[in-house]
Amino acid sequence: MTVSARSTNPIRAIDVIRKKRDGGELSRAEIEALVGGYTQGEIPDYQASAWLMAVLLKGMTRAETAALTDGVLRSGEVLDFSDLPVRKIDKHSTGGVGDKTSLVLAPLVAAGGVSVPMISGRGLGHTGGTLDKLEAIPGFNVNLPVARFRKVLEKCGCAMIGQTSEIAPADRKLYALRDVTGTVESPFLICASIMSKKLAEGIDGLVLDVKTGSGAFMKKEEDAAYLAELMVETGERMGKKMVALLTDMDQPLGRHVGNSLEVVEVLEVLQGGGPEDLRNLCIELAAWMFYLGDGTASIDEGRTLSKQLLRSGKALEKFREMVGLQDGDAAAIDDPSRLPRAQHKVDLLSPRAGYVTAIQCEQAGTACVILGGGREKKEDSVDPAVGFVLHKKVGDAVFAGEALCTVHYNSEARGARAQAILQHSYEISDAPLKSRRPLIHRVIGQSGEKN
Amino acid sequence: MTVSARSTNPIRAIDVIRKKRDGGELSRAEIEALVGGYTQGEIPDYQASAWLMAVLLKGMTRAETAALTDGVLRSGEVLDFSDLPVRKIDKHSTGGVGDKTSLVLAPLVAAGGVSVPMISGRGLGHTGGTLDKLEAIPGFNVNLPVARFRKVLEKCGCAMIGQTSEIAPADRKLYALRDVTGTVESPFLICASIMSKKLAEGIDGLVLDVKTGSGAFMKKEEDAAYLAELMVETGERMGKKMVALLTDMDQPLGRHVGNSLEVVEVLEVLQGGGPEDLRNLCIELAAWMFYLGDGTASIDEGRTLSKQLLRSGKALEKFREMVGLQDGDAAAIDDPSRLPRAQHKVDLLSPRAGYVTAIQCEQAGTACVILGGGREKKEDSVDPAVGFVLHKKVGDAVFAGEALCTVHYNSEARGARAQAILQHSYEISDAPLKSRRPLIHRVIGQSGEKN
Repeated sequence: MTVSARSTNPIRAIDVIRKKRDGGELSRAEIEALVGGYTQGEIPDYQASAWLMAVLLKGMTRAETAALTDGVLRSGEVLDFSDLPVRKIDKHSTGGVGDKTSLVLAPLVAAGGVSVPMISGRGLGHTGGTLDKLEAIPGFNVNLPVARFRKVLEKCGCAMIGQTSEIAPADRKLYALRDVTGTVESPFLICASIMSKKLAEGIDGLVLDVKTGSGAFMKKEEDAAYLAELMVETGERMGKKMVALLTDMDQPLGRHVGNSLEVVEVLEVLQGGGPEDLRNLCIELAAWMFYLGDGTASIDEGRTLSKQLLRSGKALEKFREMVGLQDGDAAAIDDPSRLPRAQHKVDLLSPRAGYVTAIQCEQAGTACVILGGGREKKEDSVDPAVGFVLHKKVGDAVFAGEALCTVHYNSEARGARAQAILQHSYEISDAPLKSRRPLIHRVIGQSGEKN
Repeated sequence: MTVSARSTNPIRAIDVIRKKRDGGELSRAEIEALVGGYTQGEIPDYQASAWLMAVLLKGMTRAETAALTDGVLRSGEVLDFSDLPVRKIDKHSTGGVGDKTSLVLAPLVAAGGVSVPMISGRGLGHTGGTLDKLEAIPGFNVNLPVARFRKVLEKCGCAMIGQTSEIAPADRKLYALRDVTGTVESPFLICASIMSKKLAEGIDGLVLDVKTGSGAFMKKEEDAAYLAELMVETGERMGKKMVALLTDMDQPLGRHVGNSLEVVEVLEVLQGGGPEDLRNLCIELAAWMFYLGDGTASIDEGRTLSKQLLRSGKALEKFREMVGLQDGDAAAIDDPSRLPRAQHKVDLLSPRAGYVTAIQCEQAGTACVILGGGREKKEDSVDPAVGFVLHKKVGDAVFAGEALCTVHYNSEARGARAQAILQHSYEISDAPLKSRRPLIHRVIGQSGEKN
């Protein structure tokens, strides 16, 4: 549709740039002409980048944001699972440190009868990525063709793959340009980038986990809330059930950071255990996924269902099934010693007694990247085995010489650099914290459930 | 200096873009890195265009504007006439319709003992260009190499050429990019573009003729005044004597529009005649050029000197000399019938009696372009013979059937289109205008002369 309209379209890129520059509201046709023309190479990089900067500085209305999202979405294939008899609900996180909830949620929600067709990304900057974590499971294949993705989804109710070249090609091209032109930070562009890819999954609804705090991309709560509202409204305009949870990323989520180590912690949660913050966040997100997917009549019922599925081992069973269907070593689910392990580990000791009052979370994420658990450059490969396990988190008391965390490393030099950063990221004070930030700051969307 | 500094410079384009995007003030080194890197092809178009859009929307301080002007200036050759024993002063107009003052001013001011090394441009949009007008004189060569430009200047005190590829190459590259990315309209970028080229002429001072009104690029007086102040301050920061006259472009200047026709009117002024508005503006601009060039002790002395030089024929003699030195047909100066003439002419008659209350000046300029006197596309050649002569200007009374203007044309189709546009551009009312805009709205710069 976009293509045929454009071939006879008198809309010129220069006029679209000027209109946005002067603060005007672009029509759907103008946005489609720009996105489509750029994707097909008819509009050059230098016009697209001038437009992106104008969008960043002048903003977009909700209608424009929806049109941009739709334009990016329609630049590629849109999956259609409407023949499947159950609701399809996904979750998207804006990225954090130790955030392994996707690996828990997909099997957990599928075990409760709501399908989860999940297309995820890799680590970005100091944050980890779901695909990197999944690939820590020996053999796990995140590159299924769409037909196999569908088969896995039909069979076990969840499937987890990476982005295919057919989905939202405009986003890949635009993102690469934004990355080098200082136009990454616009909430409108972020919204279109995230939502176009998620809505291409053929889902009925989406739960957004928008992170805020020192380890999030949006460090300020007001910025995170703005992005959350924008994404919720954009999804709703496009006929999807939407909710966003603003959640805390002021310290790593859970205790394990690093791909293989995070799979171990996922298995703990799927066995009904695991650290409280991670388990609770998984239960909250799953409850919303059940609610949006008509699996339960209320959020609270969803919480109860989630706890049952974790305790009963049904969620773990579903995970084992999916791992097997995606060529992964299902035996590793019951024997985590089959997962990659680092050659060395060392405890990082507290230099003094006191209370942990902060863990600089972006620094902690960077420590994992430096160990080799993330990428410093796009071409880098990831070491699945490295990372760290936190023994002390914010609010905990600590003795002098007590282990704050254990660093798992394969290179002495990298291990030493990571230790220095982690040491620096811990703030230890004489007095305990008077108050703690809640795990879930706000719920945005779904009338009556706001705040 | 820029080049060697840059080769070891850690300044990254992306950081300069981000800083400007966030409203920061760029350092001289940052601006030089961007302009130099772009000119040398180290920084790609898409980064330069994002930066240009950020500059357009976030603005620049005076220090940044001066640094940008200097960076563009230093991207190429800077002429040096400091060994010539007299002051070098130029004039620059922001462009209008019927604006042929440069052809009067260069010989007039040179005849008064102040040198004028003038590098001019071609017609742009609906406005005419000095080079196109000069080339209406058979044989006149605007493409002198710098060495010959210097010789003509030394010999007769003025010389008029087009831009060479050695001068401000960054401006050519940046202007081409601005033209297709909606970033032409920034006063900071306009200032840097104009001032870098003019300051490359090796002048001691510059008189700016900033046009405002329906035939100017800056239609609003406040925009023109802002640009004028910016250019004056930028020139002064770079050690030049500066003044700007805000002058009226609400109707064509003088009565002749079209290259050869304008040369005829130039000759009238150089013989002490010509239309009052054109003659007066030339005298004002020349007076300021004399004053800045220490040729006279006051503006008023400059006016007196200008009138003398026009009346005495000394200015005309200087023009004849320059035309000869630049390979032009000097005989045409005394016998304008040697200039190109259109094959046809037709009077445009007034449909009614009344008073001319407006001549839509951009439309009038467009009529000349359509006749072939300007370029619709950059590649077009210009027909020197075509144009029109206004018999009625704003404020004049007119009878029904009386000629408003005479159109000179070589193509029936173009002639018909131009007539329709000119007819439409005349506003004729029952009542005469109660007030007229003055020719010179304001003088900006040169303390004590500020309005």
